[in-house]
Amino acid sequence: MQARLIELATLVADSIEDASKAFNESDITLAERVIAGDRVIDGATATLDELAIDILARQQPVARDLRLVVSALRMSASLERMGDMAGHIAQLARYRFPEKVARKSLRPHFHELGELTVKMARQLVRLLETNNLSIAAEIQQEDDKVDALREAVLERMLGEKWKGEPMDTVDATLASRYYERFADHAVKIAKRVEYLSDGEWVRPQDEPEV
Amino acid sequence: MQARLIELATLVADSIEDASKAFNESDITLAERVIAGDRVIDGATATLDELAIDILARQQPVARDLRLVVSALRMSASLERMGDMAGHIAQLARYRFPEKVARKSLRPHFHELGELTVKMARQLVRLLETNNLSIAAEIQQEDDKVDALREAVLERMLGEKWKGEPMDTVDATLASRYYERFADHAVKIAKRVEYLSDGEWVRPQDEPEV
Repeated sequence: MQARLIELATLVADSIEDASKAFNESDITLAERVIAGDRVIDGATATLDELAIDILARQQPVARDLRLVVSALRMSASLERMGDMAGHIAQLARYRFPEKVARKSLRPHFHELGELTVKMARQLVRLLETNNLSIAAEIQQEDDKVDALREAVLERMLGEKWKGEPMDTVDATLASRYYERFADHAVKIAKRVEYLSDGEWVRPQDEPEV
Repeated sequence: MQARLIELATLVADSIEDASKAFNESDITLAERVIAGDRVIDGATATLDELAIDILARQQPVARDLRLVVSALRMSASLERMGDMAGHIAQLARYRFPEKVARKSLRPHFHELGELTVKMARQLVRLLETNNLSIAAEIQQEDDKVDALREAVLERMLGEKWKGEPMDTVDATLASRYYERFADHAVKIAKRVEYLSDGEWVRPQDEPEV
């Protein structure tokens, strides 16, 4: 199940990388690839979920093993949503092609949002591979930067210098929201890995009786 | 677990109703209530999840019972997000108070989005109470109307007559997105109830051996 999660997280990392490139450079081929690739991510998610449910049914895990399986179900849901967000970003790029989605004054922001979220997605893969909790902490730090950048995008659009058309405003509002949600899900997964390492999910007095 | 889901869905329905009223009428008291109430929804979600995990650990359900428990976990995740969306809509209302969030030309759209999503949330409560699948179909029909309204909001903002400030554009983009997501989650839950009634989650050949 860990191998499947890593596989899925890798697909998601590739997807946000391609989506960001498509968005920043108005690359329609890449955008199409991301949009088509979302089906692969959805398929991998479904396979992972079936595996988890099969394990629950056949092996009837308890205690720590049960925590792992239920966590995997939740992580896969987050990874699936991250794939959706990458797809939405690619759709904006496709819709606006051959124009770029972001106006010049926002391009540095979106460039950085792309870099940060790709970094977070790659960190997530490494976190799932190694269970090294310092990576989980790094992911949460990157998320603060994503939130700040999103705020900066909104502030710029509300500032006096903003000359964007309504379509520019709509698209930048949505794109920054998608990046924010992508990063939120990365944090959610990182916290879950932390929780699995540290925490007690089934409290001692609740340990199964069988 | 069904009783808990119904309770949670009722909280969510009250929340979107209050949030929509706060949004449409610029009612700061209601907005504050929704924002504070989101903690109650999060708490009810956590309680439901603990119950589900406890059942998995103690009773080790298989086949249909296992499907029910895992579905409850997923439904609670959707209900929690629906509560978040109501909270976000209330936050927009609070932020803009004493002004209304939506410009005049968009108020009918948002009024209808509020009515539709409240209706969907109430239908969801009844669906969880009765398992009457015709309600699930109704929810999906309402969702089409929500999507059409969201499109209409975007089209109006991209049209020549739109005189909104960038802040109006940003807020209406976000608010219509929140309503759309709220409705999507309602559909997700409705489909899951359908699936539980009709479908085979654990395929026959995958039935647990024990």
